[in-house]
Amino acid sequence: MVEKSILAISVLTTSYLLKPSDEAFGVTLSANCRIGIGNVVVRQNETIVLIDELRASSTVVTACALGVEEILPVLDDAMAMELQHHGVVIAGEQGCLKIEGYDIGNSPVELTRRFAQTPFSKLALKTTNFIPLLLKLPHAIICSSLNLAAVARAVKNRSLCIIAAGGTYGVAEDCGVALGLAAAVSGATFEPEAVIACISESAAAHNLRAKGLGYDVDFIARLNVYEVVPYYDGKVIRKSCPVQSQSSFWR
Amino acid sequence: MVEKSILAISVLTTSYLLKPSDEAFGVTLSANCRIGIGNVVVRQNETIVLIDELRASSTVVTACALGVEEILPVLDDAMAMELQHHGVVIAGEQGCLKIEGYDIGNSPVELTRRFAQTPFSKLALKTTNFIPLLLKLPHAIICSSLNLAAVARAVKNRSLCIIAAGGTYGVAEDCGVALGLAAAVSGATFEPEAVIACISESAAAHNLRAKGLGYDVDFIARLNVYEVVPYYDGKVIRKSCPVQSQSSFWR
Repeated sequence: MVEKSILAISVLTTSYLLKPSDEAFGVTLSANCRIGIGNVVVRQNETIVLIDELRASSTVVTACALGVEEILPVLDDAMAMELQHHGVVIAGEQGCLKIEGYDIGNSPVELTRRFAQTPFSKLALKTTNFIPLLLKLPHAIICSSLNLAAVARAVKNRSLCIIAAGGTYGVAEDCGVALGLAAAVSGATFEPEAVIACISESAAAHNLRAKGLGYDVDFIARLNVYEVVPYYDGKVIRKSCPVQSQSSFWR
Repeated sequence: MVEKSILAISVLTTSYLLKPSDEAFGVTLSANCRIGIGNVVVRQNETIVLIDELRASSTVVTACALGVEEILPVLDDAMAMELQHHGVVIAGEQGCLKIEGYDIGNSPVELTRRFAQTPFSKLALKTTNFIPLLLKLPHAIICSSLNLAAVARAVKNRSLCIIAAGGTYGVAEDCGVALGLAAAVSGATFEPEAVIACISESAAAHNLRAKGLGYDVDFIARLNVYEVVPYYDGKVIRKSCPVQSQSSFWR
């Protein structure tokens, strides 16, 4: 089992992370890509990709794919309620379950159902791991298995820092997607099941199923469904176009 | 959960697999590497890497690292017993447990203990998934997390077909190692936990722990411990030297 303190792992392995790739593997570089877990110290020139597969990244990717224009990360309930008062749909979880008073949980399935009832353009999102991690970053592309190929195309030839968020129950699902993204960026191909197995068999998936949220696991454990590349600019997450020429927008 | 019939997955996804990488991802290739699961149709020019992390690949890698010179794949008990009669140590599992009459199970820990008592040079190995899969291949490099970096160095710049064996209980552990190898070959770096989490949280790991074989999971769930690159030449597995100049030996 993964250590409960993802931070501890990150600190312990920082020296490994900060080695140049060629030193770590003794090979000539054909890509400039590293994968860290949790609170990673990012470098100024890096394109950051944040993955919290079950479920925050997948909720964000699904929202952008549906047509939600802005996703506002929030840390506290008072802010969320204030936004709700101004017509923003608010999604939030604590211990994986929907917070009382919120419109939906941190759930792409509940989000899709809510959007089908009445489409909306702004979503506020509060989650235990993803939002605090995101707010520490200067910028980030949001990736899940659902938009992996789109992200791979968008970040090609960039200096990449892929962050697997991890959480209380484990990190295998985030690492499977992170490794899949690193492989895809280098031009490797794989059967969809190669990434999906890491999601479906993860401790986080077991936990969600045990809590009656298996419908989200089933929805999320799919590869390359959406073309969107959500981008957090330090304030808000917006859908951005994955066309290569526009990617100079991203640091 | 992964489909019980790994073969079925492989057949269903063959068309995806056989697409050129650039068609699948719409990007220019910087590597020529694909990952398949189970019974994969390999191409003539490919360097094949076979991964059955829990536990056959790890048993083979550990054997080579200890100094075992030849590992003989066997399909039936009569052949194994005949080899045992001629002084070969025989390792075999059925339903994950040691077969009666065999010296050890398919276990790197039991292998290491047995080797510590009396070193030996030949090992015969019978397993449910790995051996039948191996015997269908013309040749293969054997990889586990234990020798991932050594394999990555050895196969660099080759046309790669990485096979995640999978089994009755799942395939996440093999896919985590396969994706990690693909990432490493392209020069990407990652925290060891990125691959180890996929092993530790896998359904196969849960099954082994439930059967009292958690010591093997703990032994195996480590990254880059050994420098050996075991090679199956169509008949026998032998330790081969990972020095680049000698790798022309491998097809």
